[in-house]
Amino acid sequence: MADIPAKTELAVTTGAIRGSKKIHVGPLKVAMREIHLEPGSGEAPVRVYDTSGPYSDPDARIDIMAGLPELRRDWIRARGDVEEVTQREVRPEDNGQLGPDRSGGVQPFPNVRKRVLRAKPGANVSQMYYARRGIITPEMEYVAERENLGRARLAEYERDGNSFGAAIPDYVTPEFVREEVARGRAIIPNNINHPESEPMAIGRNFLVKINANIGNSAVASNVAQEVDKMVWAIRWGADTIMDLSTGRNIHDTREWIMRNAPVPVGTVPIYQALEKVGGIAEDLTWEIFRDTLIEQAEQGVDYFTIHAGVRLPYVPLTAKRVTGIVSRGGSIMAKWCLAHHKESFLYEKFDEITEIMKAYDIAYSLGDGLRPGSIADANDEAQFAELYTLGELTKRAWEQDVQVMIEGPGHVPMHKIKENMDKQLEACGEAPFYTLGPLTTDIAPGYDHITSGIGAAMIGWYGTAMLCYVTPKEHLGLPDRDDVKVGVVTYKLAAHAADLAKGHPAAKVRDDALSRARFEFRWRDQFNLSLDPDTAEKYHDQTLPAEGAKTAHFCSMCGPKFCSMKITQEVRDFAAKQNAPVEGFLAAEDAEAGMAAMSQLYNETGRELYMGQGDREHD
Amino acid sequence: MADIPAKTELAVTTGAIRGSKKIHVGPLKVAMREIHLEPGSGEAPVRVYDTSGPYSDPDARIDIMAGLPELRRDWIRARGDVEEVTQREVRPEDNGQLGPDRSGGVQPFPNVRKRVLRAKPGANVSQMYYARRGIITPEMEYVAERENLGRARLAEYERDGNSFGAAIPDYVTPEFVREEVARGRAIIPNNINHPESEPMAIGRNFLVKINANIGNSAVASNVAQEVDKMVWAIRWGADTIMDLSTGRNIHDTREWIMRNAPVPVGTVPIYQALEKVGGIAEDLTWEIFRDTLIEQAEQGVDYFTIHAGVRLPYVPLTAKRVTGIVSRGGSIMAKWCLAHHKESFLYEKFDEITEIMKAYDIAYSLGDGLRPGSIADANDEAQFAELYTLGELTKRAWEQDVQVMIEGPGHVPMHKIKENMDKQLEACGEAPFYTLGPLTTDIAPGYDHITSGIGAAMIGWYGTAMLCYVTPKEHLGLPDRDDVKVGVVTYKLAAHAADLAKGHPAAKVRDDALSRARFEFRWRDQFNLSLDPDTAEKYHDQTLPAEGAKTAHFCSMCGPKFCSMKITQEVRDFAAKQNAPVEGFLAAEDAEAGMAAMSQLYNETGRELYMGQGDREHD
Repeated sequence: MADIPAKTELAVTTGAIRGSKKIHVGPLKVAMREIHLEPGSGEAPVRVYDTSGPYSDPDARIDIMAGLPELRRDWIRARGDVEEVTQREVRPEDNGQLGPDRSGGVQPFPNVRKRVLRAKPGANVSQMYYARRGIITPEMEYVAERENLGRARLAEYERDGNSFGAAIPDYVTPEFVREEVARGRAIIPNNINHPESEPMAIGRNFLVKINANIGNSAVASNVAQEVDKMVWAIRWGADTIMDLSTGRNIHDTREWIMRNAPVPVGTVPIYQALEKVGGIAEDLTWEIFRDTLIEQAEQGVDYFTIHAGVRLPYVPLTAKRVTGIVSRGGSIMAKWCLAHHKESFLYEKFDEITEIMKAYDIAYSLGDGLRPGSIADANDEAQFAELYTLGELTKRAWEQDVQVMIEGPGHVPMHKIKENMDKQLEACGEAPFYTLGPLTTDIAPGYDHITSGIGAAMIGWYGTAMLCYVTPKEHLGLPDRDDVKVGVVTYKLAAHAADLAKGHPAAKVRDDALSRARFEFRWRDQFNLSLDPDTAEKYHDQTLPAEGAKTAHFCSMCGPKFCSMKITQEVRDFAAKQNAPVEGFLAAEDAEAGMAAMSQLYNETGRELYMGQGDREHD
Repeated sequence: MADIPAKTELAVTTGAIRGSKKIHVGPLKVAMREIHLEPGSGEAPVRVYDTSGPYSDPDARIDIMAGLPELRRDWIRARGDVEEVTQREVRPEDNGQLGPDRSGGVQPFPNVRKRVLRAKPGANVSQMYYARRGIITPEMEYVAERENLGRARLAEYERDGNSFGAAIPDYVTPEFVREEVARGRAIIPNNINHPESEPMAIGRNFLVKINANIGNSAVASNVAQEVDKMVWAIRWGADTIMDLSTGRNIHDTREWIMRNAPVPVGTVPIYQALEKVGGIAEDLTWEIFRDTLIEQAEQGVDYFTIHAGVRLPYVPLTAKRVTGIVSRGGSIMAKWCLAHHKESFLYEKFDEITEIMKAYDIAYSLGDGLRPGSIADANDEAQFAELYTLGELTKRAWEQDVQVMIEGPGHVPMHKIKENMDKQLEACGEAPFYTLGPLTTDIAPGYDHITSGIGAAMIGWYGTAMLCYVTPKEHLGLPDRDDVKVGVVTYKLAAHAADLAKGHPAAKVRDDALSRARFEFRWRDQFNLSLDPDTAEKYHDQTLPAEGAKTAHFCSMCGPKFCSMKITQEVRDFAAKQNAPVEGFLAAEDAEAGMAAMSQLYNETGRELYMGQGDREHD
């Protein structure tokens, strides 16, 4: 793994996303993007949800070595319930500097905060704590503005969809956000030591979110690459990032990512704890784990994956599985439980962990360490035994007003997906569900972003609040930059398909604007409204590179001969010019005279029209 | 468009598909592929459905200039109900040699049959005709053997799934195939003039099939490319091909494809008819269309897309749509209806068309010319008005024992997909449904193989018999070779996900074999069992190129530190060595003594194990 001697290695992608302009809305200056359409089109600009942070703002000054501005700094301090403490001393083992192949390292982040925040003794700084006391925080107001995107145009839209019992309001008020957080149905993950983050909500009654995983491994990648991947992933729409780094330099890698991340960041603390004991699961202790939580809490991690549901009695339930335990965190705890033949210390010490979480407002992402790793193991006894324990732990966390979401599978055939959602809602009191896919078949390694995108869209429709992306490299290797983009865009479209099916009031705005652009041959508008304008234009140009082809009423699928959408225009003109309604047509069928008349009328109304565009579908 | 002077331009991909061997099963020598797994694994070879024809058989001699051997020749002639006639003379207009930009052309296929087959006067040679008279044809026997793939291992599998009323048998007999064809619930498209085709069935109670579209357009591609694309598409799993060529040389292009296609080929005859009248829809006549049907019937086209449901009174129903009419065939007929203000000649002459179909055993693919072209237009009045007309036409075709399938949308949000399936089953008497996607959102051009793969998997689960693929270039350009492969593999995995969810008895065989290979670090087996072994291995090698990494119990996701599946092995060994069942574990929790004993037992049973493999999922 290469060191990072020079700043130049830390190059990230900046600048406006093609065809869109960064805007900041309302008193809190909520970041969004606005896509302006062809002046002649008479179309209003389309506002889209934006996760890309300052990186896509041409006016922002980006300095990776300094980190992002602290958007939430004043909000946090104004509440008067935090105190500054000296950051825990970084130790060699925090970066895995022990044992074999532990030499080398990366340049520490140059702008580390020496003083960090913590709740005053006895205080609770979680958003849930405030919400339950009727306090509407700036974070909640920010979320309300962000989620209301496009709802101004609601009047144009008739709501339809099937939300399977979700309660998506026509308009999101700060009070609605507060209520959802108070009852645990949504979370706003934002550690007080991560003031760089732009608040967002994860909950069944908000837009479906997606997470992208990045991170070093002992065999590949480096910090520069991971920071670049983080910026790249949020550029294309990742709502949160998980740093799954293993191997060396975990602490320093995370510092670079935290200080430059405008989205919530999650981790799996057990990975780093394991590094601290040289990779021997049996040697893990509560003390080492607890120390790791504090270390990461002070760095600003927004949510922790904790596999506290992997209980000793459930471990043997996995013995008959085809793929046993596929979660790394789950397998580490299973090994610990077997080695000591003791109940998991994560389960036993759960309330003490919660005490730590509430002092920084870290949200739980209760890990499904026993999730199925294959179609064969889906929805089995081990999986659901753990899920019900996660439900029990959810209620215990809520007793201390700590935010919780629940992780879900994995590998599940389509007919078994809904059962996962139904059981989760019932067992976990509607705490947000956060699923990995699920993959709907095991036979397509190399295409698992798609096998899982299918399951993700479906479970998102059923009620999952956040979808964890899967890249084409799943099961095969570590994703590179291109894989990250493909994974993010795939999950973005799956999440949007879910919003449409749930009947999210404004989801259709973008689909309809793009469809109108397509129908009217506004190629540039079609590219700009898409999730990936660069790829859309590139594909178009592979067939018709000429600049003219982007404006001509002529398309690459059918050439200058066939017409479909233009004929529709003709149908409209014709229907408009003759006043007979549908019944008129029906009657006319039997009236030769009427036919002749109408035929003549047609011939007078632009019979000869330029034929061009066609949507090349299968016929 | 380039001519094809030299044979060398007609290069197609041949040779065994990586990791598999071509086999021919039973008296009819039904082609399948067999994937042999690592000798040490104790795993039986896995047989997979194979659409690639002789091209993937190293023992076959391939000569594109001569065409494929006539597998069904003797079966057809043995029935004694056909006669040889002289093929209709090819005219310049058959290749669009008139009007502007009509010069040039391609080399005619050198091995054209001068004599073609037709039913004897008054005879009906459709598989449905035979089926309804209790005759089991070799085609039906071939299909039974082909569909039974893997069912020999049924005993190992417990069936589950939700088939939404389909009736998938444990074992497919020739008699079952006959019954399904007789009642119109399945079709076996195989024109008597396409004896090169390997029989396959399209029906809700058989494996879900996929179609790939190819074809020239006036603006791009050439014959050599299209033949190569056809061979490439079936190599990766396309069950049928549609030749959607437009522009020049339609006749010759089709001849090259027909003579070299081992799968059924479909067309949209109205495209060629339109070329014959210089692209002026209004100038189309029944006589020109009829002549085109004969021309294509004699070449061996196996199914015709006929847009006979686009009736005059339905046309104005599309006027208020966001994207009007997106089907090219549909828009051509709509224009014709408006121009003459007459009912569609396809609807009026439907029974005469059926007369032609039964003389060659061509199946109807009743086109959905009014399908929605956007989320906004899904499930509207125009779409369903046409669907009910297609149901009426289905019954009229069945009166003459002609096989029928029904085309479906298109663009449909997830919550509106099932209504399409339910209405189709009801309106069309369970005739096979053949859908394009549907796309579940409009905002991801460049990724529409995925937006539609989601809808395809779902509607396949609900009962669609064949899924028409969509490539990444949909709406943007013409698919190249790589796009064709991505489209085919995406739809193959969607169809398989549907088979799993429907509870197809043997669908899990391949998933489980691959999952066991993954669990046991048999990398080669994992690659070979996948839908695309080349891509799976390539992705693996991008992270760990070393040859050793393909055999080592070590993976690229977690490196030599983390372990998940190996820990499961440990769990198994442990569970096996101690005889206490789950209850034992539960009790033990409260028994310190028991714990110590079990802990000691654990330490005696291989505590130190090699840590390597991990399925890098999100934690």
